[in-house]
Amino acid sequence: MAVPKRRAIVSLHREVERLVAQSGVQDGLVLINAMHITASVFINDNEEGLHHDYEVWLENLAPFDPSSQRYHHNRTGEDNADAHLKRQVMGREVVVAITAGQLHLGPWEHIFYYEFDGNRRKRVLVKIIGE
Amino acid sequence: MAVPKRRAIVSLHREVERLVAQSGVQDGLVLINAMHITASVFINDNEEGLHHDYEVWLENLAPFDPSSQRYHHNRTGEDNADAHLKRQVMGREVVVAITAGQLHLGPWEHIFYYEFDGNRRKRVLVKIIGE
Amino acid sequence: MAVPKRRAIVSLHREVERLVAQSGVQDGLVLINAMHITASVFINDNEEGLHHDYEVWLENLAPFDPSSQRYHHNRTGEDNADAHLKRQVMGREVVVAITAGQLHLGPWEHIFYYEFDGNRRKRVLVKIIGE
Repeated sequence: MAVPKRRAIVSLHREVERLVAQSGVQDGLVLINAMHITASVFINDNEEGLHHDYEVWLENLAPFDPSSQRYHHNRTGEDNADAHLKRQVMGREVVVAITAGQLHLGPWEHIFYYEFDGNRRKRVLVKIIGE
Repeated sequence: MAVPKRRAIVSLHREVERLVAQSGVQDGLVLINAMHITASVFINDNEEGLHHDYEVWLENLAPFDPSSQRYHHNRTGEDNADAHLKRQVMGREVVVAITAGQLHLGPWEHIFYYEFDGNRRKRVLVKIIGE
Repeated sequence: MAVPKRRAIVSLHREVERLVAQSGVQDGLVLINAMHITASVFINDNEEGLHHDYEVWLENLAPFDPSSQRYHHNRTGEDNADAHLKRQVMGREVVVAITAGQLHLGPWEHIFYYEFDGNRRKRVLVKIIGE
């Protein structure tokens, strides 16, 4: 998936639904995880105001600072230490039940990818097990 | 489950133990997740002082504020943006191993539901896989 | 595993790789979780500067304070309330896909144990399911 901005919240929901249907698995689990260490997969509301609130809140908890004064990680030449911190708050992965061939979710649960250091192609792993 | 307060920590431990025993699964995994996006399932100590500390700490990290100045989500008419933030710190789900027909946990691990926007009935999903 | 300091980040990566290979499982999931409630298992960069940044950041979010003024949990005689809070930020567990008999990870994903209240022996659970 192309992530053309530094930070972005991208819905994975339809694609995960499609992959689960295609798998034919009726009863099992699906793991959805970022394959990058500056990104998260999370489940929450599909509402733009809330996504804005996450941005502001995470920036306050772990501010972007490309200097190497605040973050030692940036002494390696990187500028993305804050992204490694933000990702820990939002999590790496979600595990969702599959029941009767479908994602077994509450009515407002929506699956998202959250990129904290984008501007390049990114990958998500969807692993389905069951029968 | 009825959650008669706005915020509450409710033990799920005995119920999950019961469901695992009832399933007959000897070796596998159990996923326990909130079906709501303003709640968490987490594992930690069954100790009231610590639960009080979580309340104070989370309120400090993501304060309740029903206005729509601080949180854009509350422009939708909701007042629970803080609950969507707190849930991300505590997590949506836990995955626990089943070995020899029982929850495979450390001695102090206890499974809880954490509600951040209650006063109504709430649901938790317990999904058991294995053989 | 011996954790001779109060706080330490310990790589589990090679050991999990070894256990997955030994299991013979070609396609499945592996759950890796702390069996202690003052510790985390997480996936992020194998880079010392970043590990230093986690230390500073978590200490700021949930400061160590052995007194029972700040943390009620410490009224039980414990001094580790901060460790129970830090563990929630970093998470209890990770679930990783197994594909073609190997851990299915992105290029920089590395599995770590993070101890927040050590100075004693600690245990991690590695549960492999699949076929």
